Amino acid sequence: MNNPGALKNIRFVLARPSHPGNIGATARAMKTMGLSALHLVMPREFPHPDAEARASRADDVLRGAQVHANLGAALRDCVLVVATSSRRRELRHRQLEVRAAAHEVLAHAATHPVAVVFGNETTGLTGEEASHCQLWAEIPADPQYPSLNLAAAAQVFAYELHLAARDLPPPPAAEFEPASSEQVEQLYRHFEKTMTHCGFFDPAQPKRLLPRLRRLLARAQLEAEEVNILRGFLNVVDKMRR
Amino acid sequence: MNNPGALKNIRFVLARPSHPGNIGATARAMKTMGLSALHLVMPREFPHPDAEARASRADDVLRGAQVHANLGAALRDCVLVVATSSRRRELRHRQLEVRAAAHEVLAHAATHPVAVVFGNETTGLTGEEASHCQLWAEIPADPQYPSLNLAAAAQVFAYELHLAARDLPPPPAAEFEPASSEQVEQLYRHFEKTMTHCGFFDPAQPKRLLPRLRRLLARAQLEAEEVNILRGFLNVVDKMRR
Repeated sequence: MNNPGALKNIRFVLARPSHPGNIGATARAMKTMGLSALHLVMPREFPHPDAEARASRADDVLRGAQVHANLGAALRDCVLVVATSSRRRELRHRQLEVRAAAHEVLAHAATHPVAVVFGNETTGLTGEEASHCQLWAEIPADPQYPSLNLAAAAQVFAYELHLAARDLPPPPAAEFEPASSEQVEQLYRHFEKTMTHCGFFDPAQPKRLLPRLRRLLARAQLEAEEVNILRGFLNVVDKMRR
Repeated sequence: MNNPGALKNIRFVLARPSHPGNIGATARAMKTMGLSALHLVMPREFPHPDAEARASRADDVLRGAQVHANLGAALRDCVLVVATSSRRRELRHRQLEVRAAAHEVLAHAATHPVAVVFGNETTGLTGEEASHCQLWAEIPADPQYPSLNLAAAAQVFAYELHLAARDLPPPPAAEFEPASSEQVEQLYRHFEKTMTHCGFFDPAQPKRLLPRLRRLLARAQLEAEEVNILRGFLNVVDKMRR
């Protein structure tokens, strides 16, 4: 394996999983492919005996799982956030099949934390959750019934990551420092504050401005330096108000 | 998809599955990838509510599952029988990674029935079961813990078959008629009978002769015409005895 370290930088994030059995089965799917960082956002039931039973000998992955109160907290230090889906999404999101997405994840994970996000079993990702994601990875499936079980989707993604880590040469050093999810979030908050203060955004009539802004920032895959530039600009605008 | 018909010729065979939940989850994994022929050999519990729950909307695949008393019965008309494993096997078996195996399965399935066999959750395939298989498909996995859940392995294999069916051009027409599993079985029985009658094989001291013979015949991927030739030869030997 050429990139053993890269797999350590990849976390699987389950957003509001309903069935504890799926949490355990996901832990097992991860461990079989050399992954270990499991994050849970508002799991309905956890810990739970069903999770332990289905984890089998991946109990260490399950014990190490981090639980968060919201998706943003699970993504704070990640430079790339990938959503998973077996259905076509709106075209505004960048989209790749899981095999190609796995290579992109690996390239980033060679140097920085990366998250792969799986939505709730029934409802998938909410619009707010989706707005944190920069890339949609589609698992090719039969159009008549493309609905993979949550842990089964995790197994396919983990398998492709394992192959990508084994087959890829070490990537060249990054030419720039990508912004972390937290830095992008701070930039978003800064925009919101500045736009409100200058009267461009009216919280009483929000319409779709903020979700669209968030999605735009997520999709842009900003560099840390670009975040600094934009926030410097917003600082100037803030001072103009005074 | 270039080979929609080929997926119809592929059956998944679960040998002695212990957990009915895994049967249901396998049905779901199959249906998400356009597969529908599920065969069960001596399932410990089936039908079972756990199978139905885990099948979700693949209940039609579950209802159509055929139950057999032994593995041979499930393979009767198949021209290629593939065993699955996440572990390296003895070198006497021909072995491919699942991605390459999926292409070989598709090439055969364009014209004939093919079986993919999954062993029991704990014990895998018995030696007798393994002797029916011509090709071992390995799912690459972490050597520290290569133990995929049964339905998770089925999901990965089904996913690779789906991609192979979508991406492959229609194969050229076969240049020969492959022997069915039943024809190979009849040849094996003929060998056994002839070897016994002529005194070469002593059933009181069987040693490893019959399992080795069976494995050899499976591995050879015989043509129907070759089976006829060998049985013609055995007929001649039989007459010499009289």
